[in-house]
Amino acid sequence: MPAPDLSKGVAFVRGQYVPIGEASIPITDWGFLRSDATYDVVTVWDGSFFRLDAHLERFMRSCQRWRLDPGLTPGQITGVLSQCVRLSGLRASYVEMICTRGQPPWGSRDPRLAVNQFYAFAVPYVWLANAQQREAGLHLMISDVQRIPATSVDPSAKNYHWNDLTMGLLGALDAGADSVVLVDSVGNVVEGPGFNVFCVSHGALVTPSEGMLEGVSRRTVIEMARALGLETQLRALPADELRGAEEVFISTSGGGVLPVSRVDKRPVGDGRPGPITQRLVQTYWAWHADPVYSQPIDYSL
Amino acid sequence: MPAPDLSKGVAFVRGQYVPIGEASIPITDWGFLRSDATYDVVTVWDGSFFRLDAHLERFMRSCQRWRLDPGLTPGQITGVLSQCVRLSGLRASYVEMICTRGQPPWGSRDPRLAVNQFYAFAVPYVWLANAQQREAGLHLMISDVQRIPATSVDPSAKNYHWNDLTMGLLGALDAGADSVVLVDSVGNVVEGPGFNVFCVSHGALVTPSEGMLEGVSRRTVIEMARALGLETQLRALPADELRGAEEVFISTSGGGVLPVSRVDKRPVGDGRPGPITQRLVQTYWAWHADPVYSQPIDYSL
Ligand SMILES: Cc1ncc(COP(=O)(O)O)c(C=O)c1O
Ligand SMILES: Cc1ncc(COP(=O)(O)O)c(C=O)c1O
Repeated sequence: MPAPDLSKGVAFVRGQYVPIGEASIPITDWGFLRSDATYDVVTVWDGSFFRLDAHLERFMRSCQRWRLDPGLTPGQITGVLSQCVRLSGLRASYVEMICTRGQPPWGSRDPRLAVNQFYAFAVPYVWLANAQQREAGLHLMISDVQRIPATSVDPSAKNYHWNDLTMGLLGALDAGADSVVLVDSVGNVVEGPGFNVFCVSHGALVTPSEGMLEGVSRRTVIEMARALGLETQLRALPADELRGAEEVFISTSGGGVLPVSRVDKRPVGDGRPGPITQRLVQTYWAWHADPVYSQPIDYSL
Repeated sequence: MPAPDLSKGVAFVRGQYVPIGEASIPITDWGFLRSDATYDVVTVWDGSFFRLDAHLERFMRSCQRWRLDPGLTPGQITGVLSQCVRLSGLRASYVEMICTRGQPPWGSRDPRLAVNQFYAFAVPYVWLANAQQREAGLHLMISDVQRIPATSVDPSAKNYHWNDLTMGLLGALDAGADSVVLVDSVGNVVEGPGFNVFCVSHGALVTPSEGMLEGVSRRTVIEMARALGLETQLRALPADELRGAEEVFISTSGGGVLPVSRVDKRPVGDGRPGPITQRLVQTYWAWHADPVYSQPIDYSL
């Protein structure tokens, strides 16, 4: 049997490092059977973690919010994630850390009696937009599926409750769009499958303030805007304002700042990625070289 | 190595029958990473499936709703479920069938490109109330967590989006209750973790008509009520009406009709399971002997 190709990815499951293709979770884990789990995704670019501290901090906060205990300190988690990346040899990687409820003793339905589980994996860097879309901009549709409201599931703690996002995405793909953004109950846009949304409206940068995950990339955009002297507004963003915006882009660990050139049937601006978007794309990648955000991985085994 | 104890349960994964303790799903299956899955649970009592047709019909409908294809006909699924039960030897069993999205080719985010997966398992019968609770009645709390609304996730198609139910349950358990029922955005009760809710109010049986799964046990209760000549109302059920009801019970495949003797701090009626509830409990189990609902399993291997 040939040695498995670790460059496809490496996972940490039940205390062991295994090729991603062999990594599994018990079918009885409530992380699956009740989507009772949390996670975070940090990226590795050019051999360094980007903003690892922010992701670890959010992960620990998400765990607390759902009363999950990963059983590892942020330092120990860093060790596991580094080892996954190191074993994979990947210099650009999408690295996911996961905590699941596990399962209570058979017959019990008390989540407090479950032994929580920690999982992780590193796979090749995931782009939410391919090279052509990064150049020309994405075609985004505004769905009428409403994002699960905060009164039901706290969107600021990361979770796998994606049915609304997935159904919205399927509708958008069927209609020929590249991706989708969901609305809240009063018609403001909130977020999409794996990303936050921004627009330039009357010269100011606008992004929703409620009903969505506070993405680390969103935070990076807000900080970049401050550094670049751009006015930023965190507030409700009506769907029609997004449709009529001068520029639109999304922010995600799956590619950073990604331009949107069309919302529903309408081109954004002149139909090409705008100047503010382009400046933020450049700054996003430039910041990857800044040691404040960047943490090199030692690849020697 | 001793032969594994199959009476703990048997699962069907990747085309094979395995002991439940060895059953797993790939960590990369979107059924886990996006809770992009559906399922159904049918029970086996006294060696026979109860209302298998209703569960299969609902499962196929849920699959369609989420655009999932289990790749098996209801007849083939029956064969797999029967084999799980047969191998386990269990005469009283909780039998779950599952369809997950699987995963699209690496890098793609298009759910339409994924190869959907079918899983199943049979484990010992699960009771949502233990013997003492079935005798004395459950203590139910009304949570202020709102059930995920139908505008976000269609509750009539079974899904694992349970964070709201789990957080509500944790709150109830902490407060000393046995379980929880969630409300909708205007304060009507809808359902709990794995069950529908009924009450007897001014002599009539009342159960919510919207915002919840149409449980097969709920349907059985409605049909039993008709057979027993009880008036039934399917309509919005305000939390205060539940608090002041003459009788309260829940319906679930995890035990059928289960009495509730306390809602929040207040005893229901005289604090003991009421006469209508008791009659429905008896009828529920009596109907298990009716060949219209009951489908015997051939346990010979
Ligand atoms: C629902 C949702 N919103 C927004 C984001 C963007 O967050 P980040 O910038 O931290 O990747 C994600 C990332 O997965 C997400 O799942
Ligand atoms: C959310 C929810 N409501 C209600 C029910 C009860 O449905 P059934 O009577 O078919 O078991 C379930 C069963 O799992 C459920 O998950």
